[in-house]
Amino acid sequence: MDKPIITFTTDFAVQSHEIGIMESVVLEINPKAHVIHLMHGLPDFNLSYAARVMETACYIPNGYHVCVVDPGVGTKRKPIIIETVKGNFLIGPDNGVLIPATRFLGGIKKAVEITNKKYMKHPVSNIFHGRDIFAPAAAYLSKKIKIGSFGRNLDIKELAKAPYEEAEIKNSKIDAKIISINKFGSFHINVAHKIWDKFDVRLGTMVSLSFNGQSLNVAYAKTFGDVEKGKPLIMKDEFGRVEVALNQDSFAGKYQIKIGDNILIRRLLK
Amino acid sequence: MDKPIITFTTDFAVQSHEIGIMESVVLEINPKAHVIHLMHGLPDFNLSYAARVMETACYIPNGYHVCVVDPGVGTKRKPIIIETVKGNFLIGPDNGVLIPATRFLGGIKKAVEITNKKYMKHPVSNIFHGRDIFAPAAAYLSKKIKIGSFGRNLDIKELAKAPYEEAEIKNSKIDAKIISINKFGSFHINVAHKIWDKFDVRLGTMVSLSFNGQSLNVAYAKTFGDVEKGKPLIMKDEFGRVEVALNQDSFAGKYQIKIGDNILIRRLLK
Amino acid sequence: MDKPIITFTTDFAVQSHEIGIMESVVLEINPKAHVIHLMHGLPDFNLSYAARVMETACYIPNGYHVCVVDPGVGTKRKPIIIETVKGNFLIGPDNGVLIPATRFLGGIKKAVEITNKKYMKHPVSNIFHGRDIFAPAAAYLSKKIKIGSFGRNLDIKELAKAPYEEAEIKNSKIDAKIISINKFGSFHINVAHKIWDKFDVRLGTMVSLSFNGQSLNVAYAKTFGDVEKGKPLIMKDEFGRVEVALNQDSFAGKYQIKIGDNILIRRLLK
Repeated sequence: MDKPIITFTTDFAVQSHEIGIMESVVLEINPKAHVIHLMHGLPDFNLSYAARVMETACYIPNGYHVCVVDPGVGTKRKPIIIETVKGNFLIGPDNGVLIPATRFLGGIKKAVEITNKKYMKHPVSNIFHGRDIFAPAAAYLSKKIKIGSFGRNLDIKELAKAPYEEAEIKNSKIDAKIISINKFGSFHINVAHKIWDKFDVRLGTMVSLSFNGQSLNVAYAKTFGDVEKGKPLIMKDEFGRVEVALNQDSFAGKYQIKIGDNILIRRLLK
Repeated sequence: MDKPIITFTTDFAVQSHEIGIMESVVLEINPKAHVIHLMHGLPDFNLSYAARVMETACYIPNGYHVCVVDPGVGTKRKPIIIETVKGNFLIGPDNGVLIPATRFLGGIKKAVEITNKKYMKHPVSNIFHGRDIFAPAAAYLSKKIKIGSFGRNLDIKELAKAPYEEAEIKNSKIDAKIISINKFGSFHINVAHKIWDKFDVRLGTMVSLSFNGQSLNVAYAKTFGDVEKGKPLIMKDEFGRVEVALNQDSFAGKYQIKIGDNILIRRLLK
Repeated sequence: MDKPIITFTTDFAVQSHEIGIMESVVLEINPKAHVIHLMHGLPDFNLSYAARVMETACYIPNGYHVCVVDPGVGTKRKPIIIETVKGNFLIGPDNGVLIPATRFLGGIKKAVEITNKKYMKHPVSNIFHGRDIFAPAAAYLSKKIKIGSFGRNLDIKELAKAPYEEAEIKNSKIDAKIISINKFGSFHINVAHKIWDKFDVRLGTMVSLSFNGQSLNVAYAKTFGDVEKGKPLIMKDEFGRVEVALNQDSFAGKYQIKIGDNILIRRLLK
């Protein structure tokens, strides 16, 4: 690929100098790379939302995707690279934040700990591996340096666990978790499209949502405008998961939703 | 043009993954295109502010300008392309948000509904036409695909109305509307420079502003520092409209201004 | 250099149209330039934070760094270019905001007032020199136009003073100032690494911080995770200064810190 794409996802402030400098580090190593700021300004240290955003990176063919949500920076947690079966590379801390994306990318092909100082920016700061380890690793990978050159192989079982697992259907219910909430107050859950399809709700019918001691019936719809303004809906989102929203209003604001909250989904008898 | 410019204006969160993915979609179709994030983080569903930002795109020669403020996504509202007389292309939903910009770009030369699936990204999501219809359309237009290839011609009279009209002078007054408010608490009104010039206020003299049951005399100035710190001023802004501000303080904060508020401007007797 | 880097630092809203247009102005003049949005959304008119961000630009070799935090735009304050001894160019208003960065870049080699209309975008707005003077100056400099072509030489003594000086050790104390506070609530002070090294605190020992009528003993650590969650630490940051933080919590939030506050640092008797 002539113009490899490197993405950054962080909990730094949007358009803050840390990520500007990360971009300059990439260009210094590989001037042909194109940096896309996939998402910044994530809630501080929120591994769940960050992992969810990394999942959306699978819409970028052959990208190199860096995540810097890294409360353990400079401690014993490892800096790692994961190569996925589909050929993408995920780069970041070994704190589980990269794992959910691998489920959308065919699984893990190989994982290494980054230890080779040759591919770091020196001096390596104890508090900003985004600039000194992760961005350089992405840039060198984009120049076709082999993943094996960065350090020793990691056994998949060694890797830190994901911030959420995939919800499944049990006894005709889905016991799900809220994994991200966007600017509009819509939220996404750990239910993949294929699980939803198996759940087999008919478009236009209602399902019951229970969360935080409340229960609510919402329509299964195709898009916001399928329900009246201010009314709730559940739908398949545009990045492989199930989303709950109000049409032109904030569900999370109205019902005090937080990332990590549980939500139980039941079909209604008809 | 060697490096065509494609701009994005949305009400998505700043530096959020939706717009990052839109950027990647453009580069996949036209690696030579350069994406400028013109504005993101607009107030949810605010067509007025979005339309105002699209106006400023006229400072970019020969750009392809995408707007995704789109509460009707996935419903019957049409995805459209407008070609302006000056040669720019505006791409977005047919909800009026593209119309004010055309007044700054010589008017509408041609408008089409985007229906040709060949120029969409598949599968087309019901809730994110920015990624699957608008960004691809801009990318293909920037590769010189003819506007007529995207779909049928639309009669200008078919298009949804703009969120605001142009204010005029009547009986020596201007009955204007607040169309945007920026981070500093300064606001812009639907008064173009040429109307203001006709209104014929002398620099340094005072005009009367009436809004929300209040009245205020403010100086017509050239720049913020022409009045004392904290004092109000009215002036010609840098993008063709009239702006009201406090010098180094927030007018909107102090006087509780909202987008859509009316404001009546009168010359003072001298 | 094949792909010169131009950075923007402003107090405009993040991803707002003003900075999008500045990017387009650069590309119009020098299509080979690469714009990095170093930081936007700075607190309105905050010269201290802006100056601190400009310091971090020294991590970008041979960059052209534009700062638009400019309450005096359109008044008598001069638009200037500073060439540093290390070969970087700083472009912005003569209000002191560019000076601290020069201390990290070997000092000032040359400073000029920008007056040559040939290198401005016309018509020049009275309220947006970022678009019409600073961005064009950076773009022309990146095309190797000589600094002397932009206007007359300025005596260094003519330049406006920096928003902060460098703190020194006096009587075994450092009387410092808070110069920036980030999204996580960590703050940075006007103490350079080399001053801190001279202060000679042993890693893992405690120092006393006094600020706003409070006193607190904090550990001198290498990284956040060296102290328990929620506990305070002081450390060398990743951009040449000393930082104070809580591990995974907000120091500024907990202790009501503001930019400009004084902070007195003392070693503890052991």
